[in-house]
Amino acid sequence: MRVNSKDFLVREGEDVDLKKWPTKVDPVYRSKDQYEELLKEHVAQLSLQQQLLYASNRYALLLIFQAMDAAGKDGAISHVMSGVNPQGCQVFSFKHPSPAELQHDFLWRTTRNLPERGRIGIFNRSYYEEVLIARVHPEILRNEAIPDTPHHDKKIWQERYRSITNLERHLHENGTRIVKFYLHLSKEEQRRRFLARIDEPEKNWKFSTADVAERKYWKQYMKAYEKCLAATTTRDSLWYVVPADDKENARLIVSRIVLDTLEQLKMTYPKTSPARRRELQAIRKQLTK
Amino acid sequence: MRVNSKDFLVREGEDVDLKKWPTKVDPVYRSKDQYEELLKEHVAQLSLQQQLLYASNRYALLLIFQAMDAAGKDGAISHVMSGVNPQGCQVFSFKHPSPAELQHDFLWRTTRNLPERGRIGIFNRSYYEEVLIARVHPEILRNEAIPDTPHHDKKIWQERYRSITNLERHLHENGTRIVKFYLHLSKEEQRRRFLARIDEPEKNWKFSTADVAERKYWKQYMKAYEKCLAATTTRDSLWYVVPADDKENARLIVSRIVLDTLEQLKMTYPKTSPARRRELQAIRKQLTK
Repeated sequence: MRVNSKDFLVREGEDVDLKKWPTKVDPVYRSKDQYEELLKEHVAQLSLQQQLLYASNRYALLLIFQAMDAAGKDGAISHVMSGVNPQGCQVFSFKHPSPAELQHDFLWRTTRNLPERGRIGIFNRSYYEEVLIARVHPEILRNEAIPDTPHHDKKIWQERYRSITNLERHLHENGTRIVKFYLHLSKEEQRRRFLARIDEPEKNWKFSTADVAERKYWKQYMKAYEKCLAATTTRDSLWYVVPADDKENARLIVSRIVLDTLEQLKMTYPKTSPARRRELQAIRKQLTK
Repeated sequence: MRVNSKDFLVREGEDVDLKKWPTKVDPVYRSKDQYEELLKEHVAQLSLQQQLLYASNRYALLLIFQAMDAAGKDGAISHVMSGVNPQGCQVFSFKHPSPAELQHDFLWRTTRNLPERGRIGIFNRSYYEEVLIARVHPEILRNEAIPDTPHHDKKIWQERYRSITNLERHLHENGTRIVKFYLHLSKEEQRRRFLARIDEPEKNWKFSTADVAERKYWKQYMKAYEKCLAATTTRDSLWYVVPADDKENARLIVSRIVLDTLEQLKMTYPKTSPARRRELQAIRKQLTK
């Protein structure tokens, strides 16, 4: 069985009702061993594609991960990207903005950390928090010191969606390919994972009381995600809703989608011109005489 | 006589023919002394407005200076901004992009240096170079390693204008006010200034042979400026064409426009609430007992 990337794609112009998107699907692996094997295969191909990305130096790849707590963002990033040369891969986690970052517009801190050409950049959370958590908790928005003009009351989310899609279009035109993952976890599976974080001592460090408190906003978060996914999935920058109740399966889906994206770029190693080849042969002679 | 900012404004939707825009107008000062006095007055008011900008911490101000060589960008910046607290003012000059900067999209290096809320940021040259010098010298564009998709042949300038106006709109919505100056110099006055740079030893350091070579592209530059000004002057971010053959007069015009912009923000010092005032009084008592 092979992952079909398109099954998880949010199409432009579509409404999104997350209750209709599964948090669990038939897995593409049949045993733990087969999972390991498939993942290894994906990672090896990914590593080759990343070398090609680096050598051809035309495109950058930006992967954005968004999800509720405990959905497996960190695990997906570490398992999918571990085989890739770290020199060509940059991971940034965006938690609470610093006071200095709050002094800038909401796209600034992530823009500074965009991947260069030839690199894979990974955002563990991103500017999308600004239309998700900021929408669920209006006090966050109030702390951002945006001038109090009337259009910042009702229209702010539309404005932010437009700012985001405009930025992503600009990046696309200039060579950055963007793939966005929403890891879709059920509230029940989150509960199980939080319990595991309490019950298993080696997972205790991951547990945060604040994360549990956020569970009472679950519905508001789902609404914010639905609106965000529908408004910001564009031809230039697509959202994928990845069923995340099965971590292993989610990793296989994510890695397949990344691979498909890179393979579609049809990159090749830079060609050596006949003149350059003659030059290289002449240098070769010098070096060997 | 007082500068009327609107005389120099490029209105949205207007075509621009730079031959019809003067490089010299009747000066607003009558003597060198009066010039000094007027400038001092402007700078003092500017300094007050900047304190208010800082204290109210709602807006940032971005001033962009573009011009042909020797038009007086550096002089305008130093004379107009010298009275302002340097802590609230950041000047960035954008010359040839570095190899690291070229690995990013064309807006990246300037975005990193945008002013924070409460600050005045000054760009001496800017991302506008990417639709000016890059348009006059196509080899610059070729060095930018943009993927060779068909839309990058004819449509690239329209795409870049759109990227720029989208960015400026986003910044405006999030509290940055942008004012753009094109210092409009005649080719003949540039010749005189280059000669002065050769003839006066203390100006020799400013002279660059490459600058003289650029004179043969004058017409192409004027065309690039005309298209750029017309396409990127928007309600959110206006261009001003400042007659620059008279340096002193240009500085008075620039400082007046900056002042008008700040005054229109109608900023006030943050108000102290009655509760806070009581609290301050209580602390006062403690400190004095």
